[in-house]
Amino acid sequence: MSLRTIKLIIEYDGTNFQGWQLQIPPNRTIQEEIEKALNKITKENVRVIGSGRTDSGVHALGQVAHFKTKSTLPTSTFLKALNYHLPKDISVLRVQQVKNTFHAQYSAKKKTYRYTILNRVAPSAQAWNFVYQFPYPLNVADMKREAKVLVGRQDFKSFQAANTKSKKEMSSIRTVNRLSIQKKGDLISLEIEANGFLYKMVRNIVGTLLDIGTGKLPKGSLKKILDQKNRAAASKTAPAHGLCLVKVKY
Amino acid sequence: MSLRTIKLIIEYDGTNFQGWQLQIPPNRTIQEEIEKALNKITKENVRVIGSGRTDSGVHALGQVAHFKTKSTLPTSTFLKALNYHLPKDISVLRVQQVKNTFHAQYSAKKKTYRYTILNRVAPSAQAWNFVYQFPYPLNVADMKREAKVLVGRQDFKSFQAANTKSKKEMSSIRTVNRLSIQKKGDLISLEIEANGFLYKMVRNIVGTLLDIGTGKLPKGSLKKILDQKNRAAASKTAPAHGLCLVKVKY
Repeated sequence: MSLRTIKLIIEYDGTNFQGWQLQIPPNRTIQEEIEKALNKITKENVRVIGSGRTDSGVHALGQVAHFKTKSTLPTSTFLKALNYHLPKDISVLRVQQVKNTFHAQYSAKKKTYRYTILNRVAPSAQAWNFVYQFPYPLNVADMKREAKVLVGRQDFKSFQAANTKSKKEMSSIRTVNRLSIQKKGDLISLEIEANGFLYKMVRNIVGTLLDIGTGKLPKGSLKKILDQKNRAAASKTAPAHGLCLVKVKY
Repeated sequence: MSLRTIKLIIEYDGTNFQGWQLQIPPNRTIQEEIEKALNKITKENVRVIGSGRTDSGVHALGQVAHFKTKSTLPTSTFLKALNYHLPKDISVLRVQQVKNTFHAQYSAKKKTYRYTILNRVAPSAQAWNFVYQFPYPLNVADMKREAKVLVGRQDFKSFQAANTKSKKEMSSIRTVNRLSIQKKGDLISLEIEANGFLYKMVRNIVGTLLDIGTGKLPKGSLKKILDQKNRAAASKTAPAHGLCLVKVKY
């Protein structure tokens, strides 16, 4: 029997996971939970491949993954069976049979991440695990203006996690296609679409933009930090729980 | 020392509470958690009075409560200290000193509740405890048209919980000032403002509107159900976790 390639679009609340990727037990990961559910459904030993890792505490509204299976179950049955077996904090939004050449990681063209800041003194009881509550006044106009320099093909070395080991020799050049900062009431959301992201890139950008918003960093800082190509030039990493992988384009 | 009256605006995630009101332990209630926090701050034995109860699983973005205290702490200190002592699923948004005649329950003029339906097959991993996932197609235009008959001063007996004991002899006449149903993507939210609500009124209205949306109940049903003044005429109660107390007006 020939293998089918199945693509999944996945939503998750990353709060109680040690990120996407399979680890040494007893760490709970999203990949592991999906594989456990698929193994129950297919009676196979399925390996799920995601578009990329998300860190511990990071969420997704549109993570993409694929797996190969001999199962002939209709995709609509996979959708129902997966959501039946999965825990409440993972939900499969779409199941699609795709070409056998499809690869969730290597075929990905663009990704969109969203970072949400709750800019008020009181924490949020309903969304404490989805927003980063920041109590100090922020000049959003300054943040928007500075952030413009990030759009385009650039070396984002200054925003790459300092302890990135495995990719030390790899290029830190990425193309940011779109970056928007929007304020709606107390919520400030930053959305960034790029052809790829360095490790902790969005959270390092957000941390730096917060220092611009409070006035800790003067105007023109972001350009200077980018030009230095040195992680030490940028500000501290914003917390994981404000971050969400919104979309992966193929 | 004279007593001050302090008004609180409170947000909570009702998921892990047995509702607002103090009960026989070991049930966890919102009122109890706030009193515990206030007792730590004031070293008094404070009694907190809410605008009304919310049921187990029901949320709030703008519940209002008041308490009396001898404490001379500034309201800004109360805000910070309360949020420091309260668990993550309760947040105090505002603390205000008010006239001694203010009473969170008796002075309330209007309340707004919101009910949120997620109308799709897949559950929500990020908001399963804030939306009622309903997988069957809904005709929202029909729901909107039928719901219009609820606006105004009427006897809502048909939408009052059948097992309402203590208020058996009390009037079931209420005035609905505003009722809106909005669809945004997969989310349908119903907002209703009234001078008061009968026990489970919003959830019974939502349950009936869902039967209208699916076509289980024919056009004109809501008017007929309202006219019957009998709980048995309406549909089943929608689940608690889709409901949120948005605002209390004084």
